[in-house]
Amino acid sequence: MMRALGTLHTIGMGPGDPELLTLKALRLIGQAPVVAYFAKRGRVGHARSIAGARLHPDAIELRFEYPFTTELSIEDPRYPVDMGVFYEACAGRIAAHLDGGQDVALLCEGDPFFYGSSMYLYDRLHADYPHETVPGVTGMSGCWTAAGLPIAHGDDMLCVLPGTLDEDRLVDRLLGCDAAVIMKVGRNLAKIQRALRRAGMAERAVYVERGTQDGQCILPMTGMDGRAAPYFSMVLVQGRQRLR
Amino acid sequence: MMRALGTLHTIGMGPGDPELLTLKALRLIGQAPVVAYFAKRGRVGHARSIAGARLHPDAIELRFEYPFTTELSIEDPRYPVDMGVFYEACAGRIAAHLDGGQDVALLCEGDPFFYGSSMYLYDRLHADYPHETVPGVTGMSGCWTAAGLPIAHGDDMLCVLPGTLDEDRLVDRLLGCDAAVIMKVGRNLAKIQRALRRAGMAERAVYVERGTQDGQCILPMTGMDGRAAPYFSMVLVQGRQRLR
Repeated sequence: MMRALGTLHTIGMGPGDPELLTLKALRLIGQAPVVAYFAKRGRVGHARSIAGARLHPDAIELRFEYPFTTELSIEDPRYPVDMGVFYEACAGRIAAHLDGGQDVALLCEGDPFFYGSSMYLYDRLHADYPHETVPGVTGMSGCWTAAGLPIAHGDDMLCVLPGTLDEDRLVDRLLGCDAAVIMKVGRNLAKIQRALRRAGMAERAVYVERGTQDGQCILPMTGMDGRAAPYFSMVLVQGRQRLR
Repeated sequence: MMRALGTLHTIGMGPGDPELLTLKALRLIGQAPVVAYFAKRGRVGHARSIAGARLHPDAIELRFEYPFTTELSIEDPRYPVDMGVFYEACAGRIAAHLDGGQDVALLCEGDPFFYGSSMYLYDRLHADYPHETVPGVTGMSGCWTAAGLPIAHGDDMLCVLPGTLDEDRLVDRLLGCDAAVIMKVGRNLAKIQRALRRAGMAERAVYVERGTQDGQCILPMTGMDGRAAPYFSMVLVQGRQRLR
C-alpha cells in the first residue's frame, strides 16, 4: 500500500511587520496541518510571532529550540557538530509528518534562502519529499526601508558582509563596494565602527535594530559610541547615488 | 486656506508572481485614488501587470513611459541628462496630485529601495510630502527561490554585481565573495561567462530569466553558450554551504 507524501512548504515570513507577509505565505500558513519553526530558549520564536493568530486553529506546532542560549562562535569546533545533530533531529520530526501524508509549513523569518536556518532542514529533506519554497521580504529590505535609505542605485555594487569578519577583511571588502549591509552586529560593533572609519564610510553608515518591528531603533553610526547592539541588528551604508 | 497634502506610497510589488505581493501592498493599491508606474514603450509595465485587477476601479493611472526603447549605456553622456529630465517630469505629475490632497501609490517591481527606478522620484519628493515606503520581495529572492538555490549561509559574503562592470573588475569582485548575484545580464552575457570561468565559478553558476513569472527559464551557466539573454535576467552563484 502506498501513501502520498506530504509537501514541505518553506515559507518566508518577512522582516517582522505581519502586514509584510505575502499573500502566498498567508494562504499556506492558514491551511497547514503542521507548522514548524525555530525559537530561542524561553522565547516565542520570531517567525512564529509574525504568524500570530493566522495559523489554522487545529494546526500541530513543532517548536525547534536552539541548543545554545548565547552565541557560540561559528569557529568553535563544537558548533557545527552540535548544530548538525540539532538540525538532523528537527528534519526527522518534520519527515515523520511528511511520511504520514501531512503537509508541513516551515516558518522562516525574512527570506528562507537568504541566511535562513530553515535551509539546513531544506538541505536534508528536499531530495526525498515534494517541496515548495516561498520567498519573503528580507530583514535587510525591512531595515533600509524603515531607515528611509534607498540602498543601491544604477550600477552600484552591494556587499552583504557578516560582522564576524576580522577588521582588515571588513575594511578590504568595504573599500571594494559602493553600498554595504553588515549583519550580525552584536559584540562585533566596536570592530565594525573601526572598519567603517578606516574605509571612510563612518559618516554615511546607519545602525538599525528591530527594523519594521516594535522597539525599532535607527541611529547614525557616529552616534553609537558606548551603546550595545543585539546580534540581530545591522549596519547600512547607502550607495553613491550617481544618477539623479 | 490650507489643504492637507496627499501621501506618497512607494510600493514594492515583488518579483512577478502576484501572490508574492505583501498584505500591505495589496491594501494600499486597493485604496489608492492615483496609481503611478513606469513602463517601456508599447508595454503594460511590469509593476502594473503584477497589480492586475487589484487597483481601485476608479483609480487614475499615471503611466511613465521610459524615453529609450533600447538600452542606452549608462556611460553615454546623454543618459543622465535625458533621464533626469524624464524623472523630473514624472515627479511633477505625482506632485500635482499630492498637492491636490490625493494619495498616490507608486508601483515598483521588486523592492523599491533596491535598484528601483522609483527611488529617483522618491528622492525628488520625500522632503516635501508625507510618504511611506513598503518593502517588497526582491527579484533576486524570486530567482534564487525559483532555482531552488539557497544562496547564502552562515558567514558567507554575498556580492550583488552589475553585469555592466568590465571583465577584470568582475573577476576581482567574484574572487572576493562566497556567493554572488550578477544583474543586468543582457548583452554582457559573454563577458560574464568569461569572468565566471576565470574566477573558477562557472560550474556552480545558474542563469535565471523571468523568475517566478510565466516563461521562467533556469539553466546552468555552462549550458548557455550561444544563447541570448534579456537585460532583466540574472546569474546566481551559491555560497559555500560550510555548515550542514
